[in-house]
Amino acid sequence: MLILGIDPGTGITGYGLISAEGNRLRAEDYGVIRTKVGEETSQRLCVLHDSLNELIEKAKPDVVAVEQLFFNTNVTTALAVGQARGVILLTAAQAGVSVAEYTPLQVKQTVTGQGRATKQQVGFMVKALLNLEAIPRPDDASDALAIAICHAHMGASYVSRAQGAK
Amino acid sequence: MLILGIDPGTGITGYGLISAEGNRLRAEDYGVIRTKVGEETSQRLCVLHDSLNELIEKAKPDVVAVEQLFFNTNVTTALAVGQARGVILLTAAQAGVSVAEYTPLQVKQTVTGQGRATKQQVGFMVKALLNLEAIPRPDDASDALAIAICHAHMGASYVSRAQGAK
Repeated sequence: MLILGIDPGTGITGYGLISAEGNRLRAEDYGVIRTKVGEETSQRLCVLHDSLNELIEKAKPDVVAVEQLFFNTNVTTALAVGQARGVILLTAAQAGVSVAEYTPLQVKQTVTGQGRATKQQVGFMVKALLNLEAIPRPDDASDALAIAICHAHMGASYVSRAQGAK
Repeated sequence: MLILGIDPGTGITGYGLISAEGNRLRAEDYGVIRTKVGEETSQRLCVLHDSLNELIEKAKPDVVAVEQLFFNTNVTTALAVGQARGVILLTAAQAGVSVAEYTPLQVKQTVTGQGRATKQQVGFMVKALLNLEAIPRPDDASDALAIAICHAHMGASYVSRAQGAK
């Protein structure tokens, strides 16, 4: 299974593509999509859409896993990240790829075993679980890989829950 | 000039198309785009994108005017409305239509003369300014027309400010 993890943001959106076969996880690709500060929001969202669409077309993931927002953030951040998230969810749906959503707590708990893990701990476990030589940089790419790993572990239960809800 | 005003929301997004020639304003079309409660967010955002895209292709507005968020709202609302807004801004940019953004205060002040106007007062003035027989329903459609009217009044200064900023 190919899982594309996404850590949404307006200025910088992290992505991490992993393949999961049984317990074997492998990092296939990771990085960030940057949009230009000072450009109009609508244009920045276009760049985000086009770049993500290109990634999805190239990688053909089975699922896109997206981080849900921190609810202890402020309204301005929630609005900005919400706009990026809306474009990400739309892009995945337009490409016919199903979407899974996880809270930061779920991601940290699955990847490090504790919900209050620091960014460093998450990065360390991403490196270890994917057999990488270094912690992926920037943090946004590492976080996106963590979200993908979270789905690899939770995927089965997530899908059955989603079907049960219908 | 054709102005498409948009009042963003996940469940219900209001739209209002007006034509402005000098001081003459006319309502060309208005209504709401509804998405199904209980459907996946990504699918609801797809419906919003497709419906809005159809509206833009049919009406060919010169500008899309969108309401900015209330900053005294809560984080959950900001995230949800942010997602819808992201899709709306993207859809306009993809269609090559420029976007103008106004705060609720600017809209109320321009349409009713006071920033603390109630929904009823806004509706009443929308009816009066557009020579309609009744206040457009639901509120979301009336609000979208108010945003379009706001742009008709502020448009010239908005465009010059935007150019000055480049």
